[in-house]
Amino acid sequence: MSFGISIEASTNKKQKPDPKNLVFGHHFTDHMFIMDYDAGQGWHNPRIVPYQPIALDPAAKVFHYGQTIFEGLKAFKKADGTVITFRPDKNFERLNRSNERLSVPAIDEKLGLEALRQLLLIDQDWIPEEEGTSLYIRPFVIATEAALGVNPSQKYLFMIIMSPVGSYYKEGINPVKIFVESHYVRAVRGGVGDAKTAGNYAASLKAQEEAHERGYSQVLWLDGVHRKYIEEVGSMNIFFRIGGKVVTPALSGSILDGITRRSIIELLRHWGEPVEERQISIDEVIEAHRNGTLQECFGTGTAAVISPVGELSFNGEKYTIQDGSTGELSKKLYDTLTGIQRGIVEDSLGWMIEIK
Amino acid sequence: MSFGISIEASTNKKQKPDPKNLVFGHHFTDHMFIMDYDAGQGWHNPRIVPYQPIALDPAAKVFHYGQTIFEGLKAFKKADGTVITFRPDKNFERLNRSNERLSVPAIDEKLGLEALRQLLLIDQDWIPEEEGTSLYIRPFVIATEAALGVNPSQKYLFMIIMSPVGSYYKEGINPVKIFVESHYVRAVRGGVGDAKTAGNYAASLKAQEEAHERGYSQVLWLDGVHRKYIEEVGSMNIFFRIGGKVVTPALSGSILDGITRRSIIELLRHWGEPVEERQISIDEVIEAHRNGTLQECFGTGTAAVISPVGELSFNGEKYTIQDGSTGELSKKLYDTLTGIQRGIVEDSLGWMIEIK
Repeated sequence: MSFGISIEASTNKKQKPDPKNLVFGHHFTDHMFIMDYDAGQGWHNPRIVPYQPIALDPAAKVFHYGQTIFEGLKAFKKADGTVITFRPDKNFERLNRSNERLSVPAIDEKLGLEALRQLLLIDQDWIPEEEGTSLYIRPFVIATEAALGVNPSQKYLFMIIMSPVGSYYKEGINPVKIFVESHYVRAVRGGVGDAKTAGNYAASLKAQEEAHERGYSQVLWLDGVHRKYIEEVGSMNIFFRIGGKVVTPALSGSILDGITRRSIIELLRHWGEPVEERQISIDEVIEAHRNGTLQECFGTGTAAVISPVGELSFNGEKYTIQDGSTGELSKKLYDTLTGIQRGIVEDSLGWMIEIK
Repeated sequence: MSFGISIEASTNKKQKPDPKNLVFGHHFTDHMFIMDYDAGQGWHNPRIVPYQPIALDPAAKVFHYGQTIFEGLKAFKKADGTVITFRPDKNFERLNRSNERLSVPAIDEKLGLEALRQLLLIDQDWIPEEEGTSLYIRPFVIATEAALGVNPSQKYLFMIIMSPVGSYYKEGINPVKIFVESHYVRAVRGGVGDAKTAGNYAASLKAQEEAHERGYSQVLWLDGVHRKYIEEVGSMNIFFRIGGKVVTPALSGSILDGITRRSIIELLRHWGEPVEERQISIDEVIEAHRNGTLQECFGTGTAAVISPVGELSFNGEKYTIQDGSTGELSKKLYDTLTGIQRGIVEDSLGWMIEIK
């Protein structure tokens, strides 16, 4: 089905950035997808147009009340030129779960996938092929009704933009240093921590800035109630390998249901590695470090894929993990997952969708 | 000082809405104030221009990471035509406290006040004079850097827009019904609940929608840790009058430091009425209702001023307050505060600033 997506091709193609020196999220492709919503009319006018600024009334609700949702996923190009994407269906499912939480009208997931397919085909020359690079895809919804007053918007825009990217962290696959945050809180049960909405990220900036000033890449968030249980890291989920077992915080309602998180769990189980999804306290991690059973720690996310953690700072103490180097399992997971994504490792779990 | 604010007057004046039928936040004046920020250059190019859409890159950080701050205040016109505003200095102070929490660069408060003065003068014909109406003023900051990746923006816009408004609630000064929310949580200590940032409002929509479906105007939020202590109501702070004493939740870090809240406390103390700012649990309120000492309940906020609460719903039980009618103190506070704001009651606390 074409879903009646119209296409206005760009007549003024942009110069592509050097694929060897890509920074994250600073270049955008020639086209974007856009679709309107009005109460009564529903979602309508799906279209691919040249990448361009959008004009909004200064009273647009997104500026004032933050009603917005986003997703992040990646596309790759195989050696034979085939375009493949990693589990895009999961992103559109989650988009609608986030929409529901933020009172945003649902989007037909099949239409979203078809829009993505057509946009990828028209801009496939933008997919970088260097190792460690990809085309990062950002679907998002913003509330556009021009009216002050706190209530769900009567108008929205759904858009997809795409950006050729390199590593999310300047460290690449090298271990990052993480600051365990005891003062600031990202989210709490009953809140919107499990929705991919802008406000969760705004709420994280101050702690992240202070962590940077102390020489750390990201913060590790503790739960908002007890300030004790581990939630997630900056823009990633987190895993620990303790005494041979992999442990990651259970989905509590206040952390993001990461698609990379889910994939890592499925991959480990496919390998016969035990994985526990449960509450894990910072005290348990520190104790495991003290008794020598904390073997590895890594973050997972679409942008960074796998990011090994080489050091944790908690309450003024520094805890080095795996001598600050990348652990064996982290490396194997990174190589396997990025290999599957680039089409050079067998996709035995059926994750990659070919775009044609 | 003029701060070098340039003015481009509108040549195409809009038709003003009927002041007798104003809804909240749907009409905007002929002009707006706008100022740019770039890292390195700082805030620059302050200007008043015709009210118009703004063009932003689809990757502008406000759409993705919600780095945005706002304020709300009101201007009035006295019978002699004098334009007056209610405590605007407090709003610009709070704007910068919110900016600090959200890693947004500070704005010169004197410049903000001067921009407001000039904007009010050029659009003073838009200030409605009917009882219960005012010109609602919305200063706000949005992050505009076109880059994906979670970190503070390198570019911002600061704007002021203005809207002639009637009552915030369709009930006007009549009592509203409030649903005490036990499932959803607005904010938690360590979070951004005390900053006036978009994400806090996005996080409130779902609970508000469900409360509306049950026939309630707003929700009363409980604290995120114990789910027991009263925080605030929708877009208002909340006060109770129990056994002759006025009680309002202390500023805990997760509730908004309301300027109307502060003014009500100052006014009550000026009258010699005792006011307690402290933790107050929903159980204490229910118990006071049971033993007949819960005399009044009212919300306070810039938009609604004073909004009496006629009914609370908690855990499936309904608690009617003051027989569902407006209490004596609520009425006196409303009449006094709106009287001061409209220039017909003596401004003995020196709150009103004349614009000339």
